[in-house]
Amino acid sequence: MIEHNGVVLVLSGPSGAGKSSLINKISDEIGDYYFSLSTTTRPMRKGEAEGVDYHFVSKEEFVKDIEADNFLEYATVHGNYYGTSLHPVRQALSEGKLVIFDIDVQGNMAVKNRLGDITTSIFITPPTLSELKRRLEKRSTDSKEIIEGRIQVARREIQRTSEYDFIVINDDLDVAAKVLKQIALTARLKIPHIKINEFVQRWEDIEE
Amino acid sequence: MIEHNGVVLVLSGPSGAGKSSLINKISDEIGDYYFSLSTTTRPMRKGEAEGVDYHFVSKEEFVKDIEADNFLEYATVHGNYYGTSLHPVRQALSEGKLVIFDIDVQGNMAVKNRLGDITTSIFITPPTLSELKRRLEKRSTDSKEIIEGRIQVARREIQRTSEYDFIVINDDLDVAAKVLKQIALTARLKIPHIKINEFVQRWEDIEE
Repeated sequence: MIEHNGVVLVLSGPSGAGKSSLINKISDEIGDYYFSLSTTTRPMRKGEAEGVDYHFVSKEEFVKDIEADNFLEYATVHGNYYGTSLHPVRQALSEGKLVIFDIDVQGNMAVKNRLGDITTSIFITPPTLSELKRRLEKRSTDSKEIIEGRIQVARREIQRTSEYDFIVINDDLDVAAKVLKQIALTARLKIPHIKINEFVQRWEDIEE
Repeated sequence: MIEHNGVVLVLSGPSGAGKSSLINKISDEIGDYYFSLSTTTRPMRKGEAEGVDYHFVSKEEFVKDIEADNFLEYATVHGNYYGTSLHPVRQALSEGKLVIFDIDVQGNMAVKNRLGDITTSIFITPPTLSELKRRLEKRSTDSKEIIEGRIQVARREIQRTSEYDFIVINDDLDVAAKVLKQIALTARLKIPHIKINEFVQRWEDIEE
């Protein structure tokens, strides 16, 4: 009755919460999706790759895109720009895809303001701060300073979890993946207000 | 990590949308739930029964309960009171149940204001107004005047469907039941803000 349409799933949570592992684990079971890669002006770190971790661009390019209104959302963190390009998201939505964002609490609020009617948001967190620290140290890709920075960000962001529709505690990966899959499949059922309005207009098919 | 807790599922939609049939169809598959029966002062109609369709009470009793703050929500429609008693809902929530409300658009807003963090709302509708009319006439329990009244209410309420988290078009009962079950199971994953706050306080288990 209402045609297929794209929807949004926002995933936030500290680096080390296991977002990538979770998405990989459920990627075959949630239908056709598009993972929105963020764009940043911060320098590429050891172990990172263009088009995998971020789109890495210069400050000049980023500012030009801001001026052209090419971002769905963007923010400055420690003097670096981070943003989500609008065009590929619009494209994926028009194809009826589930668009997955891995963005922070600022980004979540921005997406909610622009695409609230089709957005489901999830904050993913390790069970405790010490467990987060253990995971970050274990993967040993990051310097001590970067780990420390990630922990400070996590301590700030965890204070804003009630801005999310769901909180998923990633203690056991299998359990968390099951929960995430359940939420992602239900997120598919959101209908944009514009389509609901069209439906309502067609609904009154007789004069009373 | 976060203990089991009760959540709310609001179902609205015209009489004739198939809400009762849908709940019956999925009742064995959505876990332990409590169906919240509304209280009303309107006279019992032919075919209705106390404790099945409503709790039927006198105006005096209803007003006494309003004064004692015993209602989660209440409203006046055509001079009659309709309301949801708070006590059984609190009890069911404390037992970790899914509490299902069959209430109108006014009731939905009231529940959202009081229990928004654990509430998922669904508007259920037949595909068209003429189909609604056909269903109401077919079941022949209602007089012509009552059918006409239900249709007028439906025409007003359909205008407010975007106040709901989901809209379910009950065209095919099996399809609609599948969608409803999916949403109900995900509704279970909502966590009240108060429990999230407790979790966040426990989360910082080390000094940084």
